[in-house]
Amino acid sequence: MNPDRAILLLWCPDRPGIVADVSNFIYTHGGSIIDSSQHNDPVSDTFLMRIEWDISGFSVGREGIKPAFEPIAAKYTMTYRIELDSRTTRMAILVSSYDHCLYDLLLRNREGETHADIALVISNHEVLRPVAELFGVEFAHVPVTLSAKDDAEAQQIGILRDRGIDLIVLARYMQILSPRFVAAFPQRIINIHHSFLPAFVGAKPYHQAYERGVKIIGATSHYVTDDLDQGPIIEQDVARVTHRDSIKTMVQKGRDREKLVLSRAVRLHLEHRVMTLGNKTVVFA
Amino acid sequence: MNPDRAILLLWCPDRPGIVADVSNFIYTHGGSIIDSSQHNDPVSDTFLMRIEWDISGFSVGREGIKPAFEPIAAKYTMTYRIELDSRTTRMAILVSSYDHCLYDLLLRNREGETHADIALVISNHEVLRPVAELFGVEFAHVPVTLSAKDDAEAQQIGILRDRGIDLIVLARYMQILSPRFVAAFPQRIINIHHSFLPAFVGAKPYHQAYERGVKIIGATSHYVTDDLDQGPIIEQDVARVTHRDSIKTMVQKGRDREKLVLSRAVRLHLEHRVMTLGNKTVVFA
Amino acid sequence: MNPDRAILLLWCPDRPGIVADVSNFIYTHGGSIIDSSQHNDPVSDTFLMRIEWDISGFSVGREGIKPAFEPIAAKYTMTYRIELDSRTTRMAILVSSYDHCLYDLLLRNREGETHADIALVISNHEVLRPVAELFGVEFAHVPVTLSAKDDAEAQQIGILRDRGIDLIVLARYMQILSPRFVAAFPQRIINIHHSFLPAFVGAKPYHQAYERGVKIIGATSHYVTDDLDQGPIIEQDVARVTHRDSIKTMVQKGRDREKLVLSRAVRLHLEHRVMTLGNKTVVFA
Amino acid sequence: MNPDRAILLLWCPDRPGIVADVSNFIYTHGGSIIDSSQHNDPVSDTFLMRIEWDISGFSVGREGIKPAFEPIAAKYTMTYRIELDSRTTRMAILVSSYDHCLYDLLLRNREGETHADIALVISNHEVLRPVAELFGVEFAHVPVTLSAKDDAEAQQIGILRDRGIDLIVLARYMQILSPRFVAAFPQRIINIHHSFLPAFVGAKPYHQAYERGVKIIGATSHYVTDDLDQGPIIEQDVARVTHRDSIKTMVQKGRDREKLVLSRAVRLHLEHRVMTLGNKTVVFA
Repeated sequence: MNPDRAILLLWCPDRPGIVADVSNFIYTHGGSIIDSSQHNDPVSDTFLMRIEWDISGFSVGREGIKPAFEPIAAKYTMTYRIELDSRTTRMAILVSSYDHCLYDLLLRNREGETHADIALVISNHEVLRPVAELFGVEFAHVPVTLSAKDDAEAQQIGILRDRGIDLIVLARYMQILSPRFVAAFPQRIINIHHSFLPAFVGAKPYHQAYERGVKIIGATSHYVTDDLDQGPIIEQDVARVTHRDSIKTMVQKGRDREKLVLSRAVRLHLEHRVMTLGNKTVVFA
Repeated sequence: MNPDRAILLLWCPDRPGIVADVSNFIYTHGGSIIDSSQHNDPVSDTFLMRIEWDISGFSVGREGIKPAFEPIAAKYTMTYRIELDSRTTRMAILVSSYDHCLYDLLLRNREGETHADIALVISNHEVLRPVAELFGVEFAHVPVTLSAKDDAEAQQIGILRDRGIDLIVLARYMQILSPRFVAAFPQRIINIHHSFLPAFVGAKPYHQAYERGVKIIGATSHYVTDDLDQGPIIEQDVARVTHRDSIKTMVQKGRDREKLVLSRAVRLHLEHRVMTLGNKTVVFA
Repeated sequence: MNPDRAILLLWCPDRPGIVADVSNFIYTHGGSIIDSSQHNDPVSDTFLMRIEWDISGFSVGREGIKPAFEPIAAKYTMTYRIELDSRTTRMAILVSSYDHCLYDLLLRNREGETHADIALVISNHEVLRPVAELFGVEFAHVPVTLSAKDDAEAQQIGILRDRGIDLIVLARYMQILSPRFVAAFPQRIINIHHSFLPAFVGAKPYHQAYERGVKIIGATSHYVTDDLDQGPIIEQDVARVTHRDSIKTMVQKGRDREKLVLSRAVRLHLEHRVMTLGNKTVVFA
Repeated sequence: MNPDRAILLLWCPDRPGIVADVSNFIYTHGGSIIDSSQHNDPVSDTFLMRIEWDISGFSVGREGIKPAFEPIAAKYTMTYRIELDSRTTRMAILVSSYDHCLYDLLLRNREGETHADIALVISNHEVLRPVAELFGVEFAHVPVTLSAKDDAEAQQIGILRDRGIDLIVLARYMQILSPRFVAAFPQRIINIHHSFLPAFVGAKPYHQAYERGVKIIGATSHYVTDDLDQGPIIEQDVARVTHRDSIKTMVQKGRDREKLVLSRAVRLHLEHRVMTLGNKTVVFA
């Protein structure tokens, strides 16, 4: 995290002159480019760019960057956003009763690998309250029952909004979110699914993997959309298994992949390195 | 390959005494165990074993091993087979027009990585004839048309039987085999599918992977059964891709995985290291 | 962990009859073999074996296994040991001030991935006391100064012996152990070194890797001997880096490898799957 | 390969304005940026950039690009070069008697994975002449003896210069090149070393790996400098081994890594994606 950095993410139809105009904008306002990545999607002919620059000597203040950039955005019909690295993302973690991803996210953030303000843990069980408290994070117990799922979600959304949450991480949260919940936090909900999607969608993927006799298991982190396990994939990784692996040892090997994959996806999101294009991601790693 | 080696592969209900009886059998007949592996499948309570021994001082000749072992097999209701390492597997390769797996199999065999007698290449096209001839392997062109597919398969089966083929390797052969063909060579047909199954079954898996936006592509080698891409998996491997990969570069990265995965599966089969149990494999690597 | 399991590990000159005699021994005493692995080292012509069996119906009690086996051991001049899975290894962790491996070992053990009795944490600093206490593990602070290193080691050895420690894990402990310390716990000290040995022996391997410009970094877990970073290697793993990686991000990526490699090595040791032969290991994974 | 592409590679002290000036240069001359990557090396405060653009509508001809760019290069004291994708690199392969990397490079080039003009194979033996001829490539046999090594190198350099060779690939060439040879082709000689450098420098790295008992072997591709196996690393990869691997099976597993690593390094070089900075590479993959 650097207090003097701004990051511009933009999408627009591909046309000559964009890079020149954007880099001129930064240079003429006294900025210094730190990093720049671009991608031309050949299917949709879309240009995507992530550019990060030093604003310590910028001639307009933080609030003025957007108005100053607006004419360029309009010229190219850009969709864009400007992120200030000084603004720490407020993150909530939703869990059920598995603790490995929760510990992993909390430890990495304390270690400085990620720079979120982890403000809240919500669970449908009480069991992980001590973990949240150990790290000084507010814990909210919101029981979810089949008959009152709507009420539970309304309560969750209320708490998340009240705490000003920007990013929701489902760290092995065992409930399916309704379209209403997803719509309340578009592209701000990251899930970890314990298979190499699109293999083994839905429940009990390690059991499915065991049944099918695969030699590789995996984990997938993706943005949550209305379609279960179908959202844009951010990161995946795999581990080898053999006929000697039981479901129990697959679960153990898989936990390591889940932690690595989820933490990488969260870090990439927090560093504003992930853009979505249709149902796919562009990851400027 | 070692002319003085025998390999016993056996399956039976798990009971105490099997290892003692089998190792005693080898010892008392003057054999010396080189390698031994076993597996107890907890679901079916099946015991599987692969044991390899030096028969240079064996008190019964090659043809006598099976009769001598029969009483032990009967005692434990074993399914089993005895392979002599001196007997080289006769292998046929079925191809269409991609040559990377064909070259790879032929080069590795010539290099001594595998010890098959590659006796035949069959193709529905003429284009790979020079490759077969370069390695001194018979090439049979059997055109396959929709209307006369049955005839073509009958012709293929005829040639394969006539040449005494033990193992058929589909090295990117683009035709689906009929149940009749599969039944003619049970568990002796190995295919390479260019995805990490069960993801992306069927046609154009790289296109499917591109559409889905996965971050990992793969290849899977399996025994062919009547269900397309559903047979017992022998080996899998993966490669990383990013948003920068086109279908073309996925195909290029994938080719390397296809070659590695198929050649490993073929080598494991040739060394009699693969056993099947239901729709899964036990690989004593 | 299974209270009714015994594990026999043996080394001896290779001769016919060993497997038969060992498996007969188990069978005739009413045992049932669970798993068996063997290796013939061609350089030294040594036979190594690990065999695990169910002793719930064994005709001699736990204390009687060794005397009953002695004649076979003598016949083949075996070096061997018999481990009872019911006997939990007492483990100590030595740390300095990095906490990632410490947390990882403690969490995995609590999770049931490993079955050690983690009885003690010793550190030359106070900073990790709260972590030990969080998991209810005794913490001993033994300061180490250049002038009084001998005294410090004597104190450490005293505590370790007093607590009946079987296995010492150096979880990024930043002091070099003296030959006297190593001799007190032969092949019972496991270290994690943060490079793919033999590359980058000694201090600051990530700095060395950065200077050399490697594209892969790694971690190595090994038994500690008198030669720094030269002991028998148990497990290694690697991670990709690019020119974009700083020493700081190499350290972050490396931490994940260190945790995975050290925990795998510890688990393999605890399950009595590691044998040493000269300066190498045989790992019956 | 695209006939209408130019690639600019530049190094200079880091200063604001470079990206703006370079992208303006391309835009105002009617070019369209296809891809752009940059790196700021924090140690030397060097800025490195690779920018690729469409020159089909460029207002100056191919020969005019360099003069037109010169003022910008001078302003920032740049070291730079401009490559035209239409100009195919002329490549020579030096081999001894192993053929796996030679076949691999020739097959991939024919397949269109790389776009070199492979114009020459030089060997100190005759054995691989048929492989070169199979692909229609000139083969030069230049015997190398200890007493007449200088003469042999002079002859090699003569042939390489005569054929207008831009890139020399040592595909398991078993002779050490003299400083004179290296100086004749600075940063245009790529070697494959069969270990994960800096481990196992020099002769017989698989033997060294076997002796040390590593659990991972590797391969490294690097530019050749005067210091044996010490040049800038372009690419590395590894494979797992166990105690069961002999030197022979390590060599087999290693061959696959050698082929993959060398072909990737060659492809990256041919696509002008590799820059060197001191003894390290920046790879804009």
